[in-house]
Amino acid sequence: MKKLIIASTSTLHGGAYLDYLTPTLAEHFSGCRNLVFVPFARPGGMSHDEYTGRAAAYFAKLGIAVKGLHEFTDPAAALTDAEAVFTGGGNTFLLVSQLYKTGSMVPLADAINNGTSYLGSSAGSNICGLTMQTTNDMPIVYPPSFKTLGAIPFNLNPHYLDPQPGSTHMGETRETRIKEFHQFNTQPVLGLREGSWLEVKGSTITLKGDLPARLFQHGQEPVELDAGSDLSTLR
Amino acid sequence: MKKLIIASTSTLHGGAYLDYLTPTLAEHFSGCRNLVFVPFARPGGMSHDEYTGRAAAYFAKLGIAVKGLHEFTDPAAALTDAEAVFTGGGNTFLLVSQLYKTGSMVPLADAINNGTSYLGSSAGSNICGLTMQTTNDMPIVYPPSFKTLGAIPFNLNPHYLDPQPGSTHMGETRETRIKEFHQFNTQPVLGLREGSWLEVKGSTITLKGDLPARLFQHGQEPVELDAGSDLSTLR
Repeated sequence: MKKLIIASTSTLHGGAYLDYLTPTLAEHFSGCRNLVFVPFARPGGMSHDEYTGRAAAYFAKLGIAVKGLHEFTDPAAALTDAEAVFTGGGNTFLLVSQLYKTGSMVPLADAINNGTSYLGSSAGSNICGLTMQTTNDMPIVYPPSFKTLGAIPFNLNPHYLDPQPGSTHMGETRETRIKEFHQFNTQPVLGLREGSWLEVKGSTITLKGDLPARLFQHGQEPVELDAGSDLSTLR
Repeated sequence: MKKLIIASTSTLHGGAYLDYLTPTLAEHFSGCRNLVFVPFARPGGMSHDEYTGRAAAYFAKLGIAVKGLHEFTDPAAALTDAEAVFTGGGNTFLLVSQLYKTGSMVPLADAINNGTSYLGSSAGSNICGLTMQTTNDMPIVYPPSFKTLGAIPFNLNPHYLDPQPGSTHMGETRETRIKEFHQFNTQPVLGLREGSWLEVKGSTITLKGDLPARLFQHGQEPVELDAGSDLSTLR
């Protein structure tokens, strides 16, 4: 049975790393002793070791030992054998490139389908969608494909930002960008605000956290979905 | 002799399309009677015809007739024969994909090298750099390459935005994104604020407008460059 937590962000403003998710993660990973961390998105360019250390420090509090995917000689086997997987945020182009380069994309998708407990934040959530094409990140490397895990049958926009009232900036708003995406692609896009996450249990997908999410569907006006909404039929 | 105006944005807040650039463009295109408009970036998904109409309405005031590149049966020849070219803003992934798909990327680079007067705004400026990898846009389509015109020997970040004081948003700042770019790429990146543009005359590159620009160089702290700065030796 699929079992995922797909979070907009790892950290809330003024909070500590993953802090707001602790009760959720304690339950989500209950019984897990070991977790494989995918550090490939490298936020701010930090090293794989450094990033894995940050995740390990957090999960120690839950009694879970963390090993970075970069530490395994056979990453595909590591994912297949993993009790649990956490993919951290950073740059989605880099993450997707490294997942393909190390032959990890398909084994990770298979592990998730086979019931390995998964946590994603930011870029690590983005890759749960059908494609990475609704990322906010800069294309700092050229990935072999934009196709991602497809653990949920739509796309995500993490760190969703509403248009800022009174802004004089002329760059496109997030909503405009997603509407441009829908000129060329038909899958729904869920704008997930910081503090929101999706809980996937089997075929049930639920919007969690306190905030509504903004749903963009091809050829339709965007709508707000209340926290607690059931997204299981969205595709 | 190369002759380019490379603008951060087509439009300033509260202003009309290209209005703030009119004195500059009247001089830049002086003597030109016809201009080829590249509408491929399609902001907000507008049609090629509609976008070309917007450009034509503006250039009529300067006595210049506009034809969209999409109206030519042989776009490569159209660019080679053009008196002047303007590439409008929108989505850079879409623009670059269409330039490759129509076989226009190399002819456009050649035309610019051979002295065809060029104007770019936003995405149309981004492609003047070595690669499109410092765009702010969403990857709504998958281009065959991130390599662009290389009309200037560095990269651009149009619509450059300073970190917002007091922001509680946890997404990466523009500066963080560009620093991540420099983990994998060595060319300088110029953050061009709205209202700034580069003037290229032969081998001379000058920062124009009233604002400073922010220069990011590999392995160095970013610096502010005053308006009027000579960027001819930047590479």
